[in-house]
Amino acid sequence: MPPRRDEAEALDQSDPLGVYLERFVPAPEDLIYLDGNSLGRLPRQTPERLKEVVETQWGQRLIRGWDEGWIELPVAVGDRLGEGLLGAAPGQTMVADSTTVCFFKLASAALGARPDRTEIVTDRDNFPTDRYVLEGLAAQTGSEIVWIEADPHAGPRPEDVGAAVSDKTALVTFSQVAYRSAHLADVNSINRIAHDHGALTLWDLSHSAGALPVALDADGVDLAVGCTYKYLNGGPGAPAFLYVRKEHQDRLRQPIWGWLGRADPFEMAQGYVPGEGIASMLSGTPPVLGLTAAAVGIDLAIEAGINAIREKSMALTEYAIAFVDARLEHFEVSVGSPRDPQRRGSHVALVHPDARALTRRLIELGVIVDFRTPDVIRLGLSPLTTRFADVYDGLERLERLLGG
Amino acid sequence: MPPRRDEAEALDQSDPLGVYLERFVPAPEDLIYLDGNSLGRLPRQTPERLKEVVETQWGQRLIRGWDEGWIELPVAVGDRLGEGLLGAAPGQTMVADSTTVCFFKLASAALGARPDRTEIVTDRDNFPTDRYVLEGLAAQTGSEIVWIEADPHAGPRPEDVGAAVSDKTALVTFSQVAYRSAHLADVNSINRIAHDHGALTLWDLSHSAGALPVALDADGVDLAVGCTYKYLNGGPGAPAFLYVRKEHQDRLRQPIWGWLGRADPFEMAQGYVPGEGIASMLSGTPPVLGLTAAAVGIDLAIEAGINAIREKSMALTEYAIAFVDARLEHFEVSVGSPRDPQRRGSHVALVHPDARALTRRLIELGVIVDFRTPDVIRLGLSPLTTRFADVYDGLERLERLLGG
Repeated sequence: MPPRRDEAEALDQSDPLGVYLERFVPAPEDLIYLDGNSLGRLPRQTPERLKEVVETQWGQRLIRGWDEGWIELPVAVGDRLGEGLLGAAPGQTMVADSTTVCFFKLASAALGARPDRTEIVTDRDNFPTDRYVLEGLAAQTGSEIVWIEADPHAGPRPEDVGAAVSDKTALVTFSQVAYRSAHLADVNSINRIAHDHGALTLWDLSHSAGALPVALDADGVDLAVGCTYKYLNGGPGAPAFLYVRKEHQDRLRQPIWGWLGRADPFEMAQGYVPGEGIASMLSGTPPVLGLTAAAVGIDLAIEAGINAIREKSMALTEYAIAFVDARLEHFEVSVGSPRDPQRRGSHVALVHPDARALTRRLIELGVIVDFRTPDVIRLGLSPLTTRFADVYDGLERLERLLGG
Repeated sequence: MPPRRDEAEALDQSDPLGVYLERFVPAPEDLIYLDGNSLGRLPRQTPERLKEVVETQWGQRLIRGWDEGWIELPVAVGDRLGEGLLGAAPGQTMVADSTTVCFFKLASAALGARPDRTEIVTDRDNFPTDRYVLEGLAAQTGSEIVWIEADPHAGPRPEDVGAAVSDKTALVTFSQVAYRSAHLADVNSINRIAHDHGALTLWDLSHSAGALPVALDADGVDLAVGCTYKYLNGGPGAPAFLYVRKEHQDRLRQPIWGWLGRADPFEMAQGYVPGEGIASMLSGTPPVLGLTAAAVGIDLAIEAGINAIREKSMALTEYAIAFVDARLEHFEVSVGSPRDPQRRGSHVALVHPDARALTRRLIELGVIVDFRTPDVIRLGLSPLTTRFADVYDGLERLERLLGG
């Protein structure tokens, strides 16, 4: 039974998260936005909050703003995010810097904590910035990267990890949800394998935070990072987050020893002494405007509830896959994401030999999707802002492009 | 002749930059803001520009914003800043990350470029985050810091540098203007000394950019960083800038190998290959909101003209020093900044044994100044927003606090 538009409309009618669409600034009428996993949409409250911080705090309170809340923002926003969405008790999560810088800090700290070990395990299809940072650190420290050649339409499985990890492994690092395939890794099992060999784990949550429940504390994660501009709707270039498990905080030393990571930063004393707890992961002055916008998006996801978000996310991706199976398969479009919704994040990879050109054409037609090399059209289905009708309309335009 | 308020008013009347005060959002009537070198004031145009970027670009264009200008922001804003205020030809300046992260990248790159050398020369009174970053890098690379014990009311002199530099020196790094004393270093002479010994120089311009003419290209500077939230009025936690001299760009390798520093970042290919030119210094996704606000402040300073800014800056600090000499000296207040305006930046250090308590009392009275350990009340005189009458009023309140 091919999906019909009235079915999509019915799903939207009964969607308990449907009301959240009103909490975002409307996109242009004719736009079908299926790219909320590259840049999430603008919450209605964000301009107002930015205005308050810019015009009242910066404009009127000026430097006093630092004593009146700004200085606490990285850990305060981190705690809200950690508790609300990541399964992290307070004092372990912080928001500042870019995802790349956060990943660099934690990967470097992990290697420093295992000085007699020489190997880093990751997968060939991990997100580029993670791979590049690891290559840089490997070059700088003389470590070696053990690449898992995972199925590009899946992701690293525990058995792949078991085969790659050894007593030489310092660090095991993957994305929880693969940026191309949407494969959702088995975090708990992989952590156990890594820990059995004495390695630390570092998870990139960029494509999972705000899209599905994460259980950092319960799953035994050592370190994690992620971005806030995708499912957390924090805005272009919003600051990233990092998580360091409590028990590691005294031992792990991050490499960028800046004043805000020091104990008593404003004493400006001689000699770097790391601050207490997660604050020691700070380096420079935190980006107040970016943190302000990120906090609004994070709070919206917490309010909606991560279980409800996950439920809708699975329904959206199921719906997209059903459409592809019924109406696009005979146009050489196949599903490049796991078919088991329990092993899938919130986007869907459509594989087609002309994916690059098709993506360009779709964007010209107002259907915003991503191309990912070599052959993937990626649909990002963001539960707070994507309607089932958007999925239908976007895929119907692709069908017409393909001659349907 | 003790300065009188009518003299200050006359100076404000004839101030060619007086009109620029109108370009900033008014601070509360009763506030005397002498801390523009910690956080510059809010330009009137900033809320409007942020609204445009947030509501129109993010809200309506969404992910397409990256192709419509955002991706160019770090280098575009950097070029404007470099050409307009730093004496740097295009293609050498970039805005992104915090000052601390920028400093880390460049200091690390410099050490990497001199692998057979083991020493870093800096001064004990350099800005804390710079000292801490260097300590971290020294620990990580096995380098040693050669500390110049400069007069805390002055700064590193060429002869101090000459005595500290040797053929073991990889990097010589100072603040152009000392954050406490306002001592303005002789950049050109220090560069020549460093270069005579084969070392690279890295200048922190945080307290000089936007306050006085900088001549990076002409003075032979190798590397520089600086912040945009002081005299450049970019907002709390605004992104920092970095400069890498053209001739070094092919050889220097920064340590945080992120996707946006790679050639063809969106191909997401295997293997890090640095991008061309200054863009190779990028790491993660640039902070669009912060860059937007920073650009407004930078453009305002360019429009006012750095020579006019410098002229007013010298007049403001002269006026403050004259007040101290005439009316505060007998209350144990002395001038802790160079008396030669050619060797002084745009703030003035007032030395008093009770500086910490006096600063607190001044702030309670609405005179916003900074305390700097151990005994400095710091007056930041920001030429676009500080009036001579503000200097008079602030110092008169200090006089009254001291019993005058």
